[in-house]
Amino acid sequence: MRVRIYGDIRSGNCYKVKLALELLGRPYEWCFVDILEGESRRPDFLAMNPNGRIPLLEIEPGIYLPESNAILWYLTEGSPYVPDEPLARARTLQWMFFEQYSHEPYIATVRYWIHLLGEEQKYRTEIERRRGPGYAALAVMEGELAANDFFAPVFSIADIALYAYTHVAHEGGFSLDNYPAIRAWIQRIEAIPGYVPLA
Amino acid sequence: MRVRIYGDIRSGNCYKVKLALELLGRPYEWCFVDILEGESRRPDFLAMNPNGRIPLLEIEPGIYLPESNAILWYLTEGSPYVPDEPLARARTLQWMFFEQYSHEPYIATVRYWIHLLGEEQKYRTEIERRRGPGYAALAVMEGELAANDFFAPVFSIADIALYAYTHVAHEGGFSLDNYPAIRAWIQRIEAIPGYVPLA
Repeated sequence: MRVRIYGDIRSGNCYKVKLALELLGRPYEWCFVDILEGESRRPDFLAMNPNGRIPLLEIEPGIYLPESNAILWYLTEGSPYVPDEPLARARTLQWMFFEQYSHEPYIATVRYWIHLLGEEQKYRTEIERRRGPGYAALAVMEGELAANDFFAPVFSIADIALYAYTHVAHEGGFSLDNYPAIRAWIQRIEAIPGYVPLA
Repeated sequence: MRVRIYGDIRSGNCYKVKLALELLGRPYEWCFVDILEGESRRPDFLAMNPNGRIPLLEIEPGIYLPESNAILWYLTEGSPYVPDEPLARARTLQWMFFEQYSHEPYIATVRYWIHLLGEEQKYRTEIERRRGPGYAALAVMEGELAANDFFAPVFSIADIALYAYTHVAHEGGFSLDNYPAIRAWIQRIEAIPGYVPLA
């Protein structure tokens, strides 16, 4: 069945869903919600997702699922992108929760201020506060990827979730120069059949 | 099999795991890690979890699983606390990701500064910045609980995850006076057989 996504493709959280659907070869309809115009905070959108965030999956008319990583799980459980083995499933979730708590608030938020808003000067103090935790998240990833090709440790939606903002971290001024295992992992993901780039 | 938890029971993230294990009636061993002494950032702990966070589940000797909500899923998948139906499973994850991204950084962090560190004055500016997002998260919960008894909407680990810090939100100066549906939901959870309090 064709699902509908409400999202802004400049958002890595939205791109996660697009990449998963493309890898699955599943048809979908994309409804553009312009975050820079605040469209996710307008009453018509809040009626669909009271938390005012994108992406939002419309499963069937009137049934909406928010939270990018919950959408990934919903769309891919039963596919090869969610492992069957209990510990591998737990690892998939472990790294998706890591992404939302320890990675996204730093790496994605700084990219948003610099790359999408173009407001590096305005947010300079906040940006500098987020550099340390952002690089700490990259260091944790680097350690894991030095030992395993992927996080689950087979390719899974955990890789999709972490790839989304990591591969554009430079747009927020984060350098991957000291993270060779992350750079190799990015190349592995981009070689997967069906891969599509963010923009 | 008896699992081992590394954690500090004053942490709501750790309490989630304790509450789930108690509801399951499953034996476990608790290894105290004192967050106020920085024990989760010491080399011996970082060797087990490079991200330096608690709780940490030791599944078998040398196999560690971090991230409270991933631990909840690992321990309870196949039990009644993770629904079988795909949309209900997605709802369970939706609210757990909501908890980590939109709720915990505000409600738990403020409680940590005020109640555990006793540093309300020192963190006053940061605390005031987090009031708005914290109450916004409570408003989203209130809207959902006005329509459903639980989040999945059957009782699930999403309720355990959100209960952990919501029921002690007052320790961070958040009032639930204007959130009657949340207060009723708290009472429903505390009436579940096997429930144990935080402290």
